[in-house]
Amino acid sequence: MKVAVVPGDGIGEEVVPVAEAALRRLHPEWDYFPVEVGYGRWKRCGAAIGAEELRALREADAVLFGAVTTPPDPDYRSVIVMLRKDLGLYANLRPVRGPGVDLTIVRENTEGLYSGIEWELPGSACTLRVVTEVGSRRIARFAAARAKGRRLTIGTKANVLKSDALFRRCAVEEAEAAGVEWEEKYIDALCLDVLMHPAHYAVVVTTNIFGDILSDAAASLVGGLGLLPSANIGDDHALFEPVHGSAPDIAGKGIANPVAALRSAAMLLDHAGDREGAAAVEAAVENTLGAGMKTPDLGGSATTVAFGEAVLERLG
Amino acid sequence: MKVAVVPGDGIGEEVVPVAEAALRRLHPEWDYFPVEVGYGRWKRCGAAIGAEELRALREADAVLFGAVTTPPDPDYRSVIVMLRKDLGLYANLRPVRGPGVDLTIVRENTEGLYSGIEWELPGSACTLRVVTEVGSRRIARFAAARAKGRRLTIGTKANVLKSDALFRRCAVEEAEAAGVEWEEKYIDALCLDVLMHPAHYAVVVTTNIFGDILSDAAASLVGGLGLLPSANIGDDHALFEPVHGSAPDIAGKGIANPVAALRSAAMLLDHAGDREGAAAVEAAVENTLGAGMKTPDLGGSATTVAFGEAVLERLG
Ligand SMILES: CC(C)[C@H](C(=O)O)[C@@H](O)C(=O)O
Ligand SMILES: CC(C)[C@H](C(=O)O)[C@@H](O)C(=O)O
Repeated sequence: MKVAVVPGDGIGEEVVPVAEAALRRLHPEWDYFPVEVGYGRWKRCGAAIGAEELRALREADAVLFGAVTTPPDPDYRSVIVMLRKDLGLYANLRPVRGPGVDLTIVRENTEGLYSGIEWELPGSACTLRVVTEVGSRRIARFAAARAKGRRLTIGTKANVLKSDALFRRCAVEEAEAAGVEWEEKYIDALCLDVLMHPAHYAVVVTTNIFGDILSDAAASLVGGLGLLPSANIGDDHALFEPVHGSAPDIAGKGIANPVAALRSAAMLLDHAGDREGAAAVEAAVENTLGAGMKTPDLGGSATTVAFGEAVLERLG
Repeated sequence: MKVAVVPGDGIGEEVVPVAEAALRRLHPEWDYFPVEVGYGRWKRCGAAIGAEELRALREADAVLFGAVTTPPDPDYRSVIVMLRKDLGLYANLRPVRGPGVDLTIVRENTEGLYSGIEWELPGSACTLRVVTEVGSRRIARFAAARAKGRRLTIGTKANVLKSDALFRRCAVEEAEAAGVEWEEKYIDALCLDVLMHPAHYAVVVTTNIFGDILSDAAASLVGGLGLLPSANIGDDHALFEPVHGSAPDIAGKGIANPVAALRSAAMLLDHAGDREGAAAVEAAVENTLGAGMKTPDLGGSATTVAFGEAVLERLG
């Protein structure tokens, strides 16, 4: 396995080394190589990512990603949005787990409002929301496969948006074809109901920005973003990152919570076929938290490094 | 005052009479007239609203609105979306109040993803997200005026969407011009933070569909949609409606919660300049709930009518 390691900016630089250490502990034989991407690189050389970095990421079997800062500069395009498209990572998988919650959000990751087709006129600005049949069927099949034996919920705003009427139709047809039990909800009502009745939900499939918002809202069920991992999956590439951002406000203090990055590493292991390794990382994180070691965001006083060491110890 | 009364579909037909009765109790001198709009009319005559109904609504000083059903029929266009545009109701005001929460969401109500500019091609469907400078400044001024002395939060996805970069710029400039304390958050992070730290928020201004989703998510802070009123305000017209929908699942059972409709009536009174009347309706609702009378959604067994009568009694 060739694993590209991208700390990125802010707390990405603190939590990714912890996750990388866990991977190295379990798979010293894999090939790890660092790739510099993000706002830091942009400040240094005027581009958040270069051709060489892109090539390196394309050559990797998996990318372990931290977080990138997106400055309010209108000329700056988000690297992660670009990478998801460039690497064809069409499925953004966001598991939300905690007491009474075992939900996986499957977010379409390459189209919708993130089409990048935008223009400005004097006095107005437009963004094109693009939904394709190919893209919709692809993500719906992906979600239906994960929902086998459980319920698939389709989230759209098909009562208002013609683009979502297409997404809805494709998702329903693919769910039927896969023989999966499905239901549909409007995305506004769905955000509310996931918060009120989380236990009802197993797998939710939705379009790009709705998945973005829903996963943050659902994070409130498990104490915020600090603990949530994600996987960006395509046919040829895969990238694993915490749902949280670069958190400039706490960056550099050594207190960032590495759990989301560790769990992202577990998703990477699972993707690489090492179920056992994935379970071991999950268990080590669980037991470390269970033993009362917590970073400040969870009310504890552990540092990022101390938490990471405790997890590594448990990995043996 | 000329008040158009639109029960609409489903539980709209049950809760609007309660709200109308409260208005009539306080203002028997006003002119009330019923207007038929919605899915029921569509089934009867093939159109959810006709020219005559539209004229009646345009002539009203205020509209008391229930809810309309939007069937999954791709030929059906949502009446309420159409009315918001047709009557120029650019500001959708959604107060969310409860213990530790006193938040007003100001949702832009006429553009964004609700532009209605959509098209289908073989294999794809597009919706144009339109943000104009005129529309953005107008809603930002409206929100800034409501935020005087409190904090205005601007919710966008300006890190990804050029259309939101425009909205953001206009909102920031109008907040500055109004001398209001402001901050900005990305809409995903904002949905989460409103849930985690509701007390921090006073007035939030955001674009159309983000406001739609945020208000449903925030409803979870106060037990769901059953209690939330809204006002759709324009320069020449105003329409007041519960945030909840027509709820076909419980319609016709006489158990719908009329609180959101009653509170919408209170917003109508306030808009008409009768602050005292508005406060009286609010207090009557509060006291009825406080006395333990509750519809089944809140765990009680009161009927819609019984709850309404208890409120009317308190209005004297
Ligand atoms: C940083 C931003 C571009 C990104 C997104 O909108 O996808 C983030 O919110 C996420 O959820 O990964
Ligand atoms: C029914 C639907 C068109 C409407 C909307 O999206 O605005 C509703 O969700 C609302 O919030 O009033």
